[in-house]
Amino acid sequence: MCRWAAYTGAPIFVEEIVSRPGHSLIHQSHCATECLSAINADGFGLAWYGEREEPGLYRDVMPAWSDPNLRSLVAQVKSRLFLAHVRASTGTATSRNNCHPFAVGRWTFMHNGQVGGYDAFRRDAEMLIPDALYPQRKGATDSEALFLTALGEGLAADPRGALERAVAKFEALSRQKGDAPHIRLTAALSDGVRLYAVRYATDDQAPSLYHRWSPTRAGRAVVSEPLESGECWEQVPQGSFCTFDAEAVEIVPFCPAALAVAA
Amino acid sequence: MCRWAAYTGAPIFVEEIVSRPGHSLIHQSHCATECLSAINADGFGLAWYGEREEPGLYRDVMPAWSDPNLRSLVAQVKSRLFLAHVRASTGTATSRNNCHPFAVGRWTFMHNGQVGGYDAFRRDAEMLIPDALYPQRKGATDSEALFLTALGEGLAADPRGALERAVAKFEALSRQKGDAPHIRLTAALSDGVRLYAVRYATDDQAPSLYHRWSPTRAGRAVVSEPLESGECWEQVPQGSFCTFDAEAVEIVPFCPAALAVAA
Amino acid sequence: MCRWAAYTGAPIFVEEIVSRPGHSLIHQSHCATECLSAINADGFGLAWYGEREEPGLYRDVMPAWSDPNLRSLVAQVKSRLFLAHVRASTGTATSRNNCHPFAVGRWTFMHNGQVGGYDAFRRDAEMLIPDALYPQRKGATDSEALFLTALGEGLAADPRGALERAVAKFEALSRQKGDAPHIRLTAALSDGVRLYAVRYATDDQAPSLYHRWSPTRAGRAVVSEPLESGECWEQVPQGSFCTFDAEAVEIVPFCPAALAVAA
Amino acid sequence: MCRWAAYTGAPIFVEEIVSRPGHSLIHQSHCATECLSAINADGFGLAWYGEREEPGLYRDVMPAWSDPNLRSLVAQVKSRLFLAHVRASTGTATSRNNCHPFAVGRWTFMHNGQVGGYDAFRRDAEMLIPDALYPQRKGATDSEALFLTALGEGLAADPRGALERAVAKFEALSRQKGDAPHIRLTAALSDGVRLYAVRYATDDQAPSLYHRWSPTRAGRAVVSEPLESGECWEQVPQGSFCTFDAEAVEIVPFCPAALAVAA
Repeated sequence: MCRWAAYTGAPIFVEEIVSRPGHSLIHQSHCATECLSAINADGFGLAWYGEREEPGLYRDVMPAWSDPNLRSLVAQVKSRLFLAHVRASTGTATSRNNCHPFAVGRWTFMHNGQVGGYDAFRRDAEMLIPDALYPQRKGATDSEALFLTALGEGLAADPRGALERAVAKFEALSRQKGDAPHIRLTAALSDGVRLYAVRYATDDQAPSLYHRWSPTRAGRAVVSEPLESGECWEQVPQGSFCTFDAEAVEIVPFCPAALAVAA
Repeated sequence: MCRWAAYTGAPIFVEEIVSRPGHSLIHQSHCATECLSAINADGFGLAWYGEREEPGLYRDVMPAWSDPNLRSLVAQVKSRLFLAHVRASTGTATSRNNCHPFAVGRWTFMHNGQVGGYDAFRRDAEMLIPDALYPQRKGATDSEALFLTALGEGLAADPRGALERAVAKFEALSRQKGDAPHIRLTAALSDGVRLYAVRYATDDQAPSLYHRWSPTRAGRAVVSEPLESGECWEQVPQGSFCTFDAEAVEIVPFCPAALAVAA
Repeated sequence: MCRWAAYTGAPIFVEEIVSRPGHSLIHQSHCATECLSAINADGFGLAWYGEREEPGLYRDVMPAWSDPNLRSLVAQVKSRLFLAHVRASTGTATSRNNCHPFAVGRWTFMHNGQVGGYDAFRRDAEMLIPDALYPQRKGATDSEALFLTALGEGLAADPRGALERAVAKFEALSRQKGDAPHIRLTAALSDGVRLYAVRYATDDQAPSLYHRWSPTRAGRAVVSEPLESGECWEQVPQGSFCTFDAEAVEIVPFCPAALAVAA
Repeated sequence: MCRWAAYTGAPIFVEEIVSRPGHSLIHQSHCATECLSAINADGFGLAWYGEREEPGLYRDVMPAWSDPNLRSLVAQVKSRLFLAHVRASTGTATSRNNCHPFAVGRWTFMHNGQVGGYDAFRRDAEMLIPDALYPQRKGATDSEALFLTALGEGLAADPRGALERAVAKFEALSRQKGDAPHIRLTAALSDGVRLYAVRYATDDQAPSLYHRWSPTRAGRAVVSEPLESGECWEQVPQGSFCTFDAEAVEIVPFCPAALAVAA
């Protein structure tokens, strides 16, 4: 299990989400409360959108709390849209290429959860990645493979549909060759314009997902765990796909299961 | 606070102390029970004595549990005398040069504890290091400075006396310019022949220290926390200096305080 | 292009090959003379056989010349059979998982050379890796994929034949979808008993390969470049597969090309 | 010896100096031409000024050419004033804390050169650092000690004078206890408003220093080596202190030697 936080809105210093709040993402890296592992110290990553279409990407293998580069970066960089992640490995090595977020072109993706029994069908899963995207396969995680498969399914044209199709394929592989729980997926993704999030599981244990609009900041945080206690955060129900576009929120069902049965 | 484990006896694979036991040092790196911080993920180190007079030294900045190099090393290296450490920084940066153990010539040293208000008198403390040893000053920790000062006080000729004099000087500086608690010190050190350990504090909170002779292994483990529950470990009383020489154990009082008052 | 050195014989400190000689492997990491890139600073690795069937493995991403851990390790570890490598990336990221040697079970493999146009058919190449070995696929290099493919072809039963078949398949892919030069391969591999080496290319530019028996040391070094000038080193001709077993040397033709045409 | 590049002017993407030009700083990290060591692969650093008074700081120990984080950062960050450095160690370990630039409050400093026989008087040199600045002493380099000494001498009130006094003290120590060449110093420093540079040596071998105003960019690059061949770069004479303030350049003599004699 991992923890992540994302933001879209008026530009803010990244530290306002990542390190400043009482239960900031960096705080969650050693004291997460709503997940199995309180420690998320197997690397971290930050993707942020600035003046360019493609995001900046900073990832490293040490605990987020102990990296002075990260502390300096989040104090300097202002961004209107960013994704940040702290990792607790579910098996694959601690390596920069296995750290979230992943970035391909203008798209970014980060994931908290698991694909059950992935090692038993990793080769099959990688075969789902189209040739044109294969050079982007840098590490060995299920998350990166899922992201590249979703890109191949047409993420740009239909984010929810493409992700449903990709998850359905992974779910089918896990049902054939893997273990339960087959899919637990709380993920954020972005094309640099909108921020998307999904909360889904094949059992009833989808990792938590919250969001909150701040009128003073004119922006929205989307997170694994609320950043401050005493604030009012909206929890996203399991089986949902969210689109955050400026102040607007659209939440619709996310149903790869039907596709998985059909696959 | 940190956690450490040392061994002296018939040669064993280092993993028999560092990674194999139920509450091995690597287990303590994320689940320590007898100290304030359960997480000791700000680097680690291993010093081991082999065929040469000088020890091998392997230190890195990631959590001990996530380094495949460490896992491989402890599975291959057999040693009759070694010191291993997992670090929870009390302020100084995560850097290889700040990781324990420290090694100078054939001597090694590792420390769990603190010197109260050290930042306020670091310069004074470094002035205690003699010129000849100053090139060995690689990092910025109180622990390394204490070790170099003790070497300057004649660690080779009189380990307990030299360490008492060094601690007394640090304690005096902390009383003059620092904060309480002035000294908390549970340390291990070795010249490659004998293994020494000390447990001392200016308050009543010296970090824990245990040891246990294993007849099957024909060796002794000296540790921050027992490596297995249900085994019989001897706790070292506060204010003690221990010499472990093959099966023999000598425990004598460690009293820098008298010297500190006189200083 | 990279540089490597291997050894088999009476146990020696690894530094006697890796750091001590005038043109040691570490010297070659910044002053290689017989290859296109004089600098081999994109990581390094060491695999050594000791008391266990499986080798030790130490790899990191910094230049070999600047890693104090490596310097200490090669001064302490004595081995009867080891493989060491310094890397100059031909494109894939600097990551521990992309550093040679690669190790699977008791087998190790390291490679100097290239597979032409690999990015265009990486997915096809990874499909050559059997399911049972796929969890061992940690990085993204052509070298690791070739090694795993060769293991799948039966390296244990028939080292030369399995490697010929694997190279033939890679060569066929490069001829179909990649670029010339299709294969340049100077590699070493071992099962912990014998040391094997191969020198092959589809053009006339196979990277250099030398070996030399030292009677005083009672061991043989097998290297990219001679470790000392003025010594007498035997150059292995292109298109050869070598088996080094104690003092014995067997050199036979290595001919994947015929297989590649047939494939 | 190291290589560095700095910039002041209208905001540009940092990559326009660091990675884009034909002989960019990253190119100089493996192919420097005007210094003894062509390879500057022992770490790198970037300090940049943005919206805050204090600069951002990003340093790491790998070669600059192989760090994807650096490549991404310089493509995203726009800055009106920045300093970048690639390091070839003259002895001290490769560690983030030994990488340039160094930053204290709003000041930054980076250095190419050496202080002759520094190890013999490092302790004396560190004693020149005032107590209030001592907590900023993170590593073990002569460069960081010189910077902190200059800050103690009043860099904010009188940059040239303070740096002359600091260099004079180091020069005196080198003459008493060290070796020739006593000082070689080509350095850049900034308070976030102006960019300063100095070129000085006790022999006639001060490392090279150039600058060039680009009218199209409305900014000035100050560098160890020209970033493009065929362009017109002004070389700074040895014994000079430069102040770059928007388009204005002031170059005055830099004469610590007289002070050193008097010291």
